[in-house]
Amino acid sequence: MMNSSVITIGDELLIGQTIDTNSAFIGQEFNKIGLWVRRRVAVGDNYDEIWKALDEESKESDIIIITGGLGPTADDITKPLLCDYFGGKMIVNEKVLAHVHHLFKNVFNRPGPMPESNLKQAEVPNCCTILHNETGTAPGMLFKKNGKVFISLPGVPHEMKWLIINEVIPYLLKEFKMPAIVHRTVLTVGQGESHIAALLKDFESTLPTHIKLAYLPNYGMVKLRLTTFGTDKEQTEKEVEPYFKKLQETVKDFLVTNEDEGLEVVVGNILKSKNKTMGTAESCTGGYIAHLITSVAGSSAYFNGSVVSYSNSVKENVLGVQTKTIERYGAVSEETVKEMAAGAIRTLGVDYAVAVSGIMGPDGGSEEKPVGAVWVAVGCTAKTETLKLNLRFDRKRNISLTATYALNFLRKFILKNETDVF
Amino acid sequence: MMNSSVITIGDELLIGQTIDTNSAFIGQEFNKIGLWVRRRVAVGDNYDEIWKALDEESKESDIIIITGGLGPTADDITKPLLCDYFGGKMIVNEKVLAHVHHLFKNVFNRPGPMPESNLKQAEVPNCCTILHNETGTAPGMLFKKNGKVFISLPGVPHEMKWLIINEVIPYLLKEFKMPAIVHRTVLTVGQGESHIAALLKDFESTLPTHIKLAYLPNYGMVKLRLTTFGTDKEQTEKEVEPYFKKLQETVKDFLVTNEDEGLEVVVGNILKSKNKTMGTAESCTGGYIAHLITSVAGSSAYFNGSVVSYSNSVKENVLGVQTKTIERYGAVSEETVKEMAAGAIRTLGVDYAVAVSGIMGPDGGSEEKPVGAVWVAVGCTAKTETLKLNLRFDRKRNISLTATYALNFLRKFILKNETDVF
Repeated sequence: MMNSSVITIGDELLIGQTIDTNSAFIGQEFNKIGLWVRRRVAVGDNYDEIWKALDEESKESDIIIITGGLGPTADDITKPLLCDYFGGKMIVNEKVLAHVHHLFKNVFNRPGPMPESNLKQAEVPNCCTILHNETGTAPGMLFKKNGKVFISLPGVPHEMKWLIINEVIPYLLKEFKMPAIVHRTVLTVGQGESHIAALLKDFESTLPTHIKLAYLPNYGMVKLRLTTFGTDKEQTEKEVEPYFKKLQETVKDFLVTNEDEGLEVVVGNILKSKNKTMGTAESCTGGYIAHLITSVAGSSAYFNGSVVSYSNSVKENVLGVQTKTIERYGAVSEETVKEMAAGAIRTLGVDYAVAVSGIMGPDGGSEEKPVGAVWVAVGCTAKTETLKLNLRFDRKRNISLTATYALNFLRKFILKNETDVF
Repeated sequence: MMNSSVITIGDELLIGQTIDTNSAFIGQEFNKIGLWVRRRVAVGDNYDEIWKALDEESKESDIIIITGGLGPTADDITKPLLCDYFGGKMIVNEKVLAHVHHLFKNVFNRPGPMPESNLKQAEVPNCCTILHNETGTAPGMLFKKNGKVFISLPGVPHEMKWLIINEVIPYLLKEFKMPAIVHRTVLTVGQGESHIAALLKDFESTLPTHIKLAYLPNYGMVKLRLTTFGTDKEQTEKEVEPYFKKLQETVKDFLVTNEDEGLEVVVGNILKSKNKTMGTAESCTGGYIAHLITSVAGSSAYFNGSVVSYSNSVKENVLGVQTKTIERYGAVSEETVKEMAAGAIRTLGVDYAVAVSGIMGPDGGSEEKPVGAVWVAVGCTAKTETLKLNLRFDRKRNISLTATYALNFLRKFILKNETDVF
């Protein structure tokens, strides 16, 4: 199997002002075509550090991807360095120049003339192959040295992604023979990583060494992924199938899907297949559940909307929660979320609704209702069910976990009701 | 200035199933205390690769942070490797063991007995100092070799963060003398990186070499950060002040804040100081603006709620948009968002509302209204203003950009109205 390294350049990565999502994307895409990412290295805008990283990574990797250091405001380090490293000189590439002018004239909607810094984007080392960047001014550049391939890409995520998909992957598939790689993923919700691992202990011991099981925990969920390599795609898929079946069976109590997809996609697919609609009534999650649902393209087919009832007046006036319910039981109570869910079904005109009310922190907790206390209700016209959560994290995690558990509670409720006879 | 390296361990990082947010957090926290992160390296669950990374990074860095590879389901590589690398043997630490039992008995709310895999967490090399992990079962471990300090932390983000803040930073501040480091940040919204750079060209040429200007672009925003080092904190702050003033003046047309804080925090602070409330009426952003606003602790002081009116029926029935308005002009139109904003003010009982309707893609576009067409309205009882956006990205970016521009439009509207006399 071929090896690759990803080198990301930029002080902003080292001081943590930017989270490196580029490396993850490259890792995903390379993995799909059977190219292993051996190491990822982030270095600052520093000539010697970049040079050293190129030397080091090319010792053991066949393909070296470099991202960043190419924007119009980047320090003038990366391009001249690449020029020195691969022994070339800087020239103006007319095609790139024409593309930069085209972008500013026809695509970018910005006032005023084009800043001169953009003209620099057309200056490239004469020892590289240009990879056309449809989405931005900085082109990709491909170099070869000692039998290794080096590809330099801009660090702006959507430009880097476009180049990986449209230029880099097609080039690699044309030039190199990659192995077949097969992944099979299940998503579980509602159990911790160590409990899932205890369930899977015997199963793991039956796996042959070339089939790997990975645990990918995330906010109330654990993704489990089987990975195997082979020479023939079909044969490799066939080999992993019985193990994948066994995996699903073993975690069936917590299993949400046997595809590599999110909970919000699963809920949407169920609603679509049943031709039903949903809505949310959100207090403590502040619209986050609605955001998750609507992050899926085509969600308007089953999602009508949401009432984010952060204040009690909105709970009462828009959702029709009774004043005396809030007075007697509080905004964070089983009684209130039940009325919120019923109100959402009425107000939004939906078949199913999920309602949440809780205390996300850091403030607002009391002895009786501490930070992390959450009530969830799901319902249809005929009935309502409730769930109490006791979370123990920071605001961001509490919001994410509430959304995960609420969506999963809704998923189970819909599945149960759509098979019941009323 | 002292150097550090961050080594993150895990195949899931290399294949991109997990985005490495740990390194960014460590970079931020180290930067605050004046400890430079020289390099970040991600390696797989592979004995030789981890060993090599420890060797390499300790050549030029004084502090080496290692995260990951310690969870209950991690391959049994990292801890034995650390044991070998630093020359010790594995022993059961009674304090850690008691803590693991305590967590399972009193904190984790999970059914069934404790999985045995968790007992392994109490086995540690006898050549390290244990760093107590209040938030999880895997302790931090501190080693010393050839005058360098190595600290191994669990990879679960909230556990790693707790250990960095409560154990690692206090240790480093006690053991080492760090320089004074000063950052000054402004946030601009509404202009591209290259235009901001053109504005700042003359300013940049006046900066002394030890004061650095960084551009941090993100979804319609550019953060600009001045950084400088010195021996005395107060003196260093004084030195950077006139440059920071000049920076703010130069970008004043796009300036949102001169603090390192998000747009949603700025909007919240304005509302709090004016004692006003707001709400949102969201179609295409599906609750994302409400989510941003409510991600800020204490937002219930000024945020009443939102109507996510994804379907036309919710626009009509909850927000009171007239059927004939939608029929005549369409759901994505200036007329509709104006009525949505007015409806939000009425329905949610707020002083200010922002309303958005648009086509986020990938489907749903037409020749007249292509993907990326968005109408925004902001209003108070007395008046309404509108804004048309023409975005050209994928669904996720279109949603983020719409939220950014809508919040900034609202911010300007509030500022203008709160100083006007009606």
